[in-house]
Amino acid sequence: MERGLFITVEGTDGAGKSTQLAYISDYMKEKGESAIFTREPGGTPIGEKIRALILDRRNEEMSPLTEMMLYAASRSQHVAQMIGPAITRGRIVVCDRFIDSSLAYQGHARGLGDAVEVVNQYAVGEFMPDATFLLKLDPKIGLQRIKEGEKDRMERQDAAFYRAVYEGYLALEEAYPDRIIGIDASQPAAVVSEEIRRHLDRLLLARKVQW
Amino acid sequence: MERGLFITVEGTDGAGKSTQLAYISDYMKEKGESAIFTREPGGTPIGEKIRALILDRRNEEMSPLTEMMLYAASRSQHVAQMIGPAITRGRIVVCDRFIDSSLAYQGHARGLGDAVEVVNQYAVGEFMPDATFLLKLDPKIGLQRIKEGEKDRMERQDAAFYRAVYEGYLALEEAYPDRIIGIDASQPAAVVSEEIRRHLDRLLLARKVQW
Repeated sequence: MERGLFITVEGTDGAGKSTQLAYISDYMKEKGESAIFTREPGGTPIGEKIRALILDRRNEEMSPLTEMMLYAASRSQHVAQMIGPAITRGRIVVCDRFIDSSLAYQGHARGLGDAVEVVNQYAVGEFMPDATFLLKLDPKIGLQRIKEGEKDRMERQDAAFYRAVYEGYLALEEAYPDRIIGIDASQPAAVVSEEIRRHLDRLLLARKVQW
Repeated sequence: MERGLFITVEGTDGAGKSTQLAYISDYMKEKGESAIFTREPGGTPIGEKIRALILDRRNEEMSPLTEMMLYAASRSQHVAQMIGPAITRGRIVVCDRFIDSSLAYQGHARGLGDAVEVVNQYAVGEFMPDATFLLKLDPKIGLQRIKEGEKDRMERQDAAFYRAVYEGYLALEEAYPDRIIGIDASQPAAVVSEEIRRHLDRLLLARKVQW
């Protein structure tokens, strides 16, 4: 059995995560790898219910701590029920957002600091991502890509909030250089995909060699 | 302005919490105190939605950590939106279950240990209860009082689980003797109420004197 591989994709809204996740999916098919694609918040039936709570526009009075804990609750269910067992069985799991979103959005932008890391360490346990693609795009550009009427509770934050999230991501990239792969997402999507491909080639090779 | 007073009522299911909460309500009216009565999980619109998630029988696959974090999320919203502001304004707040339920149910009975205390310290912040009435009743007796068809997800646990919760409560009573007031709930309800009255008299007096 090959070693499991856990890849996450991060970035502010509008940075092109969906496009690159679709690219990673095509890549895995091309390589004959049956990777599992999932997302946060959500990823499990219970997690999706928590997601609905977090994103519901009617829940405007939600405190930052509550928001952070709901994300962590969704994550712990995701790890316990889905990601953990899959990685343990040697599968490849690709997740749209994971712990770094909490660290950037709740820890940095909402100002909750260390609490986010402490609580999320319980949620994640031993299943930290092996590699994280961070799509870096000035949030001023990213936000223009989202239509006003389609915004959920999180997407309705102001520009200063998204600026703080972006800076949080940059701080994480600096703090975890071995895990986080920052990519300039202002480049054409195909160029971004090419960069991702190079890293995926390396990750798949390392998976086979190291086992 | 008088000092705020935060009272919680704890115990395994069937120990008589509802009866004694009704008694405390009557007592407060008799004393001319407009106390706020609330409950956990829940107590706020967002907290009640989280409560529904926790107690829904369909969510059988919920991991212990997720359960613990949902309780903490509900609690942090409750403290931020309701308990904290009320206590700060000098009000009396009486809450049906609070942090000790998490420590006994998730920490002791589910075996999550310190994680529960760490996560809940963030949720509770500076608003620890001033006094906690712990209604102590052998869970074997308490469980007979709940009808099978009315049980929610938490109440459907087995006898060994309730035994562990009970032992968790006893350990808390020993650990926090200044805050937790253990009362033998196998006594007639009126006797339990009389004990509670004596403590409430003392708490209300201390509130006026200390300010």
